[in-house]
Amino acid sequence: MKRIDSIKNPQVKTWKKLHTKKERDKSGLFFIEGFHLVEEALKTKAIIKELIITEQTEIPAHWNIDDVSVIMVTDDIMKMISETETPQGIAAICYQQTNEEVLHTAQKILLLDAVQDPGNLGTIIRTADAAGVEVVVIGEGSVDTYNGKVIRSTQGALFHLPVIKKDLHEVVKQLKERDVKLYGTSLENGQPYTDVQPSSSVALIVGNEGNGVSKELLEATDTNLYIPIYGKSESLNVAVATGVLLYYLYV
Amino acid sequence: MKRIDSIKNPQVKTWKKLHTKKERDKSGLFFIEGFHLVEEALKTKAIIKELIITEQTEIPAHWNIDDVSVIMVTDDIMKMISETETPQGIAAICYQQTNEEVLHTAQKILLLDAVQDPGNLGTIIRTADAAGVEVVVIGEGSVDTYNGKVIRSTQGALFHLPVIKKDLHEVVKQLKERDVKLYGTSLENGQPYTDVQPSSSVALIVGNEGNGVSKELLEATDTNLYIPIYGKSESLNVAVATGVLLYYLYV
Repeated sequence: MKRIDSIKNPQVKTWKKLHTKKERDKSGLFFIEGFHLVEEALKTKAIIKELIITEQTEIPAHWNIDDVSVIMVTDDIMKMISETETPQGIAAICYQQTNEEVLHTAQKILLLDAVQDPGNLGTIIRTADAAGVEVVVIGEGSVDTYNGKVIRSTQGALFHLPVIKKDLHEVVKQLKERDVKLYGTSLENGQPYTDVQPSSSVALIVGNEGNGVSKELLEATDTNLYIPIYGKSESLNVAVATGVLLYYLYV
Repeated sequence: MKRIDSIKNPQVKTWKKLHTKKERDKSGLFFIEGFHLVEEALKTKAIIKELIITEQTEIPAHWNIDDVSVIMVTDDIMKMISETETPQGIAAICYQQTNEEVLHTAQKILLLDAVQDPGNLGTIIRTADAAGVEVVVIGEGSVDTYNGKVIRSTQGALFHLPVIKKDLHEVVKQLKERDVKLYGTSLENGQPYTDVQPSSSVALIVGNEGNGVSKELLEATDTNLYIPIYGKSESLNVAVATGVLLYYLYV
């Protein structure tokens, strides 16, 4: 097992840099920490580049890390690379997902247009997984999928289904060629979501917290839906709205 | 208009103290800030005890503050009593809601058992308002409704419907006497929510992020429901789950 004892080791700097989007984009890697997230990531082994532990770390007996590259570091290094106040003593460097194959066959698809709050994006990915979505596509203008808070909010769901960054207009074009039903969400000129029939082949687009889905995308959909508001609130939280729609639209 | 220029004025200290639950409980008051929240609060005028502004504050022309007690403070005082980095220059002291009358007649009721994350509680209140819930009852062990982050997450919905703190067992007893259909939520020994019929008279209980609804409450319900998980995630976020259930259960 490789060991790193000096906080000046260039490797440590490389890890720490993964807390910036710029470095994640450049390297195609991202950083996760904590037992739950690492356990979920281990279920898709190919995704883990390096597992980082300390001398005190007790690897759970049921984890199979035979083929995983493990690096032992000091508590000081772990503290330095961690984003949390009290690091759990376990972290990993992972490869970002780029395989778009699934887009050609998936029947349950969620498209996100410029969702900006990390907690919302993470919760949406978690909700999509729970509802049986096969692939989540993140368009431009969204918060980075591999942001620490997004990953924590997914509660591991990021490792359960493909989450891909891609131009939404391109994806919409592909979906239309495949005759996948395409629903946008819009409070204006939409129809109540309960007007349409649940189906086994549906792509849903949800959008930015303040501005919703962009006009150009809304014009490319089959139908645009809204969730009726019975009280005095102006709207639902975007993750809640996504949950209501996904659980209704899919059979 | 009353003016306060010294940060040593005892009034200032009293306001600042409202950031603690202890002081809110003692006084029956709470603190809000920002134009959107104050505007929503103003729609139920009786709720505002004092409106706090600075010399720079521009009160929107459509606000009617004729009968509201307004206090002008310095920027330093506003900064001191604010919980945000960049105060908007407007805040208010409000009365907590204690009127339980609505519990005797409401047909759409949401009960919360020990929801602990402020963002979740706020989002649930916002969702409940949107879905047409008439009253939200917060049981023991929940984060305080009047916590700043809860209020911000409600996006003003806290002022749209009664949100009451009360012992849930007592409320359950009352609801049973009134023959309101009572649903709990539980991943174990529950049935899929789509097994029951939507109704116009429903009380729903949702629970703690980790442990769900307490056993005692689950035993007192008519039926306990769960939302099927089709992916690998273990559960849904509690606010998302509440949205899915409320939008299904109510007609």
